Amino acid sequence: MHNIISDLQQLIRQPSVSARHEGLEECAHLVCDIMSRAGITAEVLYLRKPHLSQTNLKSNKDENTCDSVNSPFNDNKTYSREIEQMSGLDNIPPIVYGEVKSKSNPDGKTILFYNHYDVQPEEPLDLWDKADPFSGSIEGNYIFGRGSSDDKGELITRIKAVEFYLEKIGDVPCNIKFIVEGEEEIGSPHIDQYISNHRNKLACDCVIWEFGYINEQGIPILSLGMKGLLFVEMKCQTLSRDAHSSLAAILENPAWLLIRALNTLRDGTGKILIKDWYKEVKKFTEQEELLISKEPFNEGEFKKHHGVDRFLIDRSKGGESKALVGQATCNLAGLVAGYAGNVPSNIVPESATAKLDFRLVPEMDPKIQFNRLVDHLNEHGFNEIISTKFIHGVRAARTDPNHSFVTQVQDSVKEIFGDAILSVSSAGTGPMYLFHEILKSPCISVGCTYVYSRIHSPNEFARIDFLNKTIKCITRLMQRAK
Amino acid sequence: MHNIISDLQQLIRQPSVSARHEGLEECAHLVCDIMSRAGITAEVLYLRKPHLSQTNLKSNKDENTCDSVNSPFNDNKTYSREIEQMSGLDNIPPIVYGEVKSKSNPDGKTILFYNHYDVQPEEPLDLWDKADPFSGSIEGNYIFGRGSSDDKGELITRIKAVEFYLEKIGDVPCNIKFIVEGEEEIGSPHIDQYISNHRNKLACDCVIWEFGYINEQGIPILSLGMKGLLFVEMKCQTLSRDAHSSLAAILENPAWLLIRALNTLRDGTGKILIKDWYKEVKKFTEQEELLISKEPFNEGEFKKHHGVDRFLIDRSKGGESKALVGQATCNLAGLVAGYAGNVPSNIVPESATAKLDFRLVPEMDPKIQFNRLVDHLNEHGFNEIISTKFIHGVRAARTDPNHSFVTQVQDSVKEIFGDAILSVSSAGTGPMYLFHEILKSPCISVGCTYVYSRIHSPNEFARIDFLNKTIKCITRLMQRAK
Repeated sequence: MHNIISDLQQLIRQPSVSARHEGLEECAHLVCDIMSRAGITAEVLYLRKPHLSQTNLKSNKDENTCDSVNSPFNDNKTYSREIEQMSGLDNIPPIVYGEVKSKSNPDGKTILFYNHYDVQPEEPLDLWDKADPFSGSIEGNYIFGRGSSDDKGELITRIKAVEFYLEKIGDVPCNIKFIVEGEEEIGSPHIDQYISNHRNKLACDCVIWEFGYINEQGIPILSLGMKGLLFVEMKCQTLSRDAHSSLAAILENPAWLLIRALNTLRDGTGKILIKDWYKEVKKFTEQEELLISKEPFNEGEFKKHHGVDRFLIDRSKGGESKALVGQATCNLAGLVAGYAGNVPSNIVPESATAKLDFRLVPEMDPKIQFNRLVDHLNEHGFNEIISTKFIHGVRAARTDPNHSFVTQVQDSVKEIFGDAILSVSSAGTGPMYLFHEILKSPCISVGCTYVYSRIHSPNEFARIDFLNKTIKCITRLMQRAK
Repeated sequence: MHNIISDLQQLIRQPSVSARHEGLEECAHLVCDIMSRAGITAEVLYLRKPHLSQTNLKSNKDENTCDSVNSPFNDNKTYSREIEQMSGLDNIPPIVYGEVKSKSNPDGKTILFYNHYDVQPEEPLDLWDKADPFSGSIEGNYIFGRGSSDDKGELITRIKAVEFYLEKIGDVPCNIKFIVEGEEEIGSPHIDQYISNHRNKLACDCVIWEFGYINEQGIPILSLGMKGLLFVEMKCQTLSRDAHSSLAAILENPAWLLIRALNTLRDGTGKILIKDWYKEVKKFTEQEELLISKEPFNEGEFKKHHGVDRFLIDRSKGGESKALVGQATCNLAGLVAGYAGNVPSNIVPESATAKLDFRLVPEMDPKIQFNRLVDHLNEHGFNEIISTKFIHGVRAARTDPNHSFVTQVQDSVKEIFGDAILSVSSAGTGPMYLFHEILKSPCISVGCTYVYSRIHSPNEFARIDFLNKTIKCITRLMQRAK
């Protein structure tokens, strides 16, 4: 078996920042290569290029890499150029599809692994004091780098679990499929099209989600759901260009207007003040309440990690877990106006912009919530001065905890890690509802990501012990799921 | 006479951005060179380096440039290095002092020209669609570039007016002094020390201020005062690092806290809600009221230039001029939290920062006002979560409109431009109060800056016709002031 660490390092060293559209195709082809080398039949699929969709199909019986005649990175210049031009036109990163059919059990169950090869931007660079973000450098049990956990680390454990069986017995216990996308970190804007276009190819009995957390006691948290998301831009522009701030005596400063508008959206406890915001939200079921109450939350460790000594609001015991699982939020992810560098710049800024992410819970519809936000701003008199843009929306999703697949995952995790925690929903967001709606498959998050591994932050790392244990865990699951 | 345009271009082409401490010493020496070439005895003066203060003294009788044996930019390597090290230590840009004693009238009056060689940062670069910000390129009557008006254009007209006399009659009608500083655009943090240290050298009867506006009818506005300024940073930090925004359900977002605090500072009309903020503000005198009522304000042109169709508040006729002259303001010059780029970044930002500039009017003291702001934040419960930093403060100043020097300037302007408008105070800020307090001299703003020349903004320009008329005007003033 090819070394897991060097494969992961190779992936980390290929920057693939979807926010900047950097290195995405390169990374897709690298993933395809690593899969092929592991014996997985892998291909790179593009949107809206039906004649190209099949061109990179690789078989584990043929060559060892994807750098062959049909790849856009080969010597066939004319062909390459054609693909590049088309990519330039669409600018949509490809997905990598992988497949291994079980020889001994071809009519058995099919597991689909969903992962992504893109990563969050590495900024702020100066806070990466452990290692270069694209180095994959190792210090003891840690491998550092953007994507080391999220999501290149997760992906590699799954590839290695398949490789383990293929090398050991030349077969896999159940059918395996992979879908690896390149836009997860920017909200998966095209995964719905990819899944719809390839719904037959992707047909499966269950989905292993792209991430899975392991807590500070080394116990995996099996998450059965994800929150939804509404991402919005609010912009106020009052001037055609920045003006000298002496004119603030008579010119309207857009930052003041934006602040006034934002200040109406929520109260100091985080409660959203937009009319009907919580209308479709259901209470937890008794089973959900029970599961949440069993979910450990290490308050001390959490506070230490984030450098806080209190939470948003004081809650009764268990309140934090309930909020993370089931509370709709209104977060100010970005805010900018004028110049806030170290040296005074005396201007009235021409515009002020806020980026807001609203986390949604089941039955909230992003488009309906967006309209409620717009209505709210209208009612408060901001309609003419603030433009509000729907950037993207994702619905929440939850898998039934009573599904047999949930038990199989639980048992596999307990076998390797000693225990497993079942979580009603992650606090995060992903396109899980599409897998529910289009593929009609249950989804579970189970993986190798240490809960304090600084994903999306400087000094992101993966724990090597967890990578190895997770590979074992997935091999056990493949055995159970057959 | 050396060409005014090529001299101004040479100055523009030397970037001198005090906000980045870029090119300042180089620009000071260039100014010294241009003055020397014009026949002015010029020297570059450093703070806290008494043994160096005199070393660059140049005489119009000696050499033609400042690049001689005593300059830090010469071949005397040991000496150069010593100065560079000391500059690095202090990092305070030098001033340029210039002097021409009248041979025919040595005991006559002395005019001190106050200017600055530093410029505002050129950003945003992509909006400079007319020319590169440091090109000084010409299009018809316009010369484009950062500093073309503010303040390299103003400076060059004054040097040229002196050069005109020296070349024509080998003498000047009255004594002339120059002080050209390098930190005006960052609030002149050391001009007080320079003036105090050199109060005898700078002794004068009147000061011509660094800028002077000319309105859209081509009539100069002679401003007799300047507003004060309190520049403050407010910062809220709740986390030790950015966190994944899914945690917004329980983590306190510093941007929301900062917004809530900012929202308490002023109302929608611009009125500052901090207790006792206006306590020391005096009403206009009758003479001031009269002068303000005579000051034309071209509302249509102003609105068109700034791309606005209304002002901060609806005012009665003349309200805008009154506000610009005499209203204390609270302006949000900069605001930043998280990431507000084009691609969603789902984080709870670790901190949020605002930069505020409060314009002050006579009798308001920046330190007292700062304490009132801090008290206000304490009273509203923000003391523990928001840190407030005094960045710098400047008092307001006004020259008595009845001073004889005011009449001399008015007459000179009327002779060349046909008319003159007397303004009680500019809406802007400068260290005028120091010249009042330390040098006991009246100060008047009179210059060449077209009111819509986009100072501090992209595509800043100077009008060549106004440059030439202003040179003439200053020669007339020197004649009158003798």
